[in-house]
Amino acid sequence: MSSTLLVVGSVAYDTIETHTAKREEILGGAATFIALSASHLCAANVVAVVGEDDFPQTHIDLLTRRGINLDGLERAPGRTFRWAGRYADDFSSRTTLDTQLGVFETFDPKIPEAYRANRYLMLGNIHPALQLKVLDGFGDDTFVAADTMNLWIDTTRELVDALLKRVDLLIINDEEALMLTGERQILPAANKIRAMGPPAVIIKRGEHGAYLFTESVCFFAPALPLAEVVDPTGAGDSFAGGLLGYLAAQDSTGIEVMKTGMLYGAAAASIKVGLFGADEFAAVNREEIDRRVGQLRELVRLGG
Amino acid sequence: MSSTLLVVGSVAYDTIETHTAKREEILGGAATFIALSASHLCAANVVAVVGEDDFPQTHIDLLTRRGINLDGLERAPGRTFRWAGRYADDFSSRTTLDTQLGVFETFDPKIPEAYRANRYLMLGNIHPALQLKVLDGFGDDTFVAADTMNLWIDTTRELVDALLKRVDLLIINDEEALMLTGERQILPAANKIRAMGPPAVIIKRGEHGAYLFTESVCFFAPALPLAEVVDPTGAGDSFAGGLLGYLAAQDSTGIEVMKTGMLYGAAAASIKVGLFGADEFAAVNREEIDRRVGQLRELVRLGG
Repeated sequence: MSSTLLVVGSVAYDTIETHTAKREEILGGAATFIALSASHLCAANVVAVVGEDDFPQTHIDLLTRRGINLDGLERAPGRTFRWAGRYADDFSSRTTLDTQLGVFETFDPKIPEAYRANRYLMLGNIHPALQLKVLDGFGDDTFVAADTMNLWIDTTRELVDALLKRVDLLIINDEEALMLTGERQILPAANKIRAMGPPAVIIKRGEHGAYLFTESVCFFAPALPLAEVVDPTGAGDSFAGGLLGYLAAQDSTGIEVMKTGMLYGAAAASIKVGLFGADEFAAVNREEIDRRVGQLRELVRLGG
Repeated sequence: MSSTLLVVGSVAYDTIETHTAKREEILGGAATFIALSASHLCAANVVAVVGEDDFPQTHIDLLTRRGINLDGLERAPGRTFRWAGRYADDFSSRTTLDTQLGVFETFDPKIPEAYRANRYLMLGNIHPALQLKVLDGFGDDTFVAADTMNLWIDTTRELVDALLKRVDLLIINDEEALMLTGERQILPAANKIRAMGPPAVIIKRGEHGAYLFTESVCFFAPALPLAEVVDPTGAGDSFAGGLLGYLAAQDSTGIEVMKTGMLYGAAAASIKVGLFGADEFAAVNREEIDRRVGQLRELVRLGG
């Protein structure tokens, strides 16, 4: 009995430079990649904001064709959030070249009444005050996953701490996990984060896979080795979308469902890394995702 | 029917600085860690050289107590190989502070007659001309694994190429694999290396685990998440020793044996990373290795 995933986060235009290519103002944003990734597995609702003037119907169509419900997509006076960045030649780091918050600066997420029944909620990386506000509209029967970033850990730590007390699953990068806890290794970092609130923590390590830590389990989902990296932007959000989409599809957060969900996340992330932007990502089909989930299973399969 | 592993490589004194500690002239070297790691699983013979004056009986005893045969350990006039290095605070890199080759500079590996029947051979990272010379003493019925390093790839590329044509398994770091092939990703690098000779390639990624590539299989052995990193020196050699030791113990290089062997390697490496030097590493017991192999299995275990 498939459930519905509610995604709250950013929709953005990304300008991306790599050592081989540059793409200008392509469709991106955490909510976009989360919802697209989840849309292969479950129904997805989106709460986000875009600019009134610069968000064409073609983008709306792109998302709705994937079955994504955009009743929660607000169109506000002004321009859509823009981000520009350049990746190091080996993709080990990236530099932000420009950020124009636009309508995202005053984003005040409003949850359509019909969305309030959603029992799977993914809070993309937005200001923790907004994440907390969204949570006020949902009860304990909602499974809440959240992402955050170094900026909020640095500048609004108390809000991040308050958020952690209210989420079921934190999905975070390794560097952010170490920063959040002052630890040097992800194992003690995960333990500390779990002591701050979330019963489950996923620590993402980019091309090196992702670890799930719960009270009873430490599980590792590898990343697929790829022939080429094109653009890692949105890979972490695609991972979260695949995972949460699978949980909603199974309507379960049991540990084996979580594990398999991480493979769906890793499959989606591996696809995203191989292409540019949400437009290309939206063209992926379910068969390709399933094929990569099968490869991931083989990658760690042990006989006996 | 357990077989015997022959290890050819360095025995050294390491001086190691980390952000929390410094240890001076502790027992190390590739052959030392490979043989110690393998010694829990199979009989191990060592061909290496140490200085006549500065290699005490206590070190000999340490190794022979682990059942390691040292008939091939030459004592030459001069001093034992010394290496000194400092790790970055996060262990992501290390700087060589001092290298004194000593007797290692004129190392000319001599294989005792009794060793020539050994059917598992691990060529630690020594000059490829020496690795090739050792190979001349063995036939096609010997399974040959070899390590190499950026220095030899840079300075003696033709010899490395000649070596690759004669090994069954290359075990190499990710950076070295990329350097050897000019690729940016390990998947195409592994394919290129296999085209150069070795039917199997293992690409080690330190704390991020190791990939095995063969014609039919891509397998990933994760690394155990650790509470603390003490000293990564010798972890890669401990990995190779655990793997080759398991192959020799099973007297098989079948794919499932290779996979399980990589878990033994990863278990040994995880132990080495948590302590300083060969002295402490020699005190490890088989139960601890088996316990960690069990944890590694759990780490990637998928139901269904």
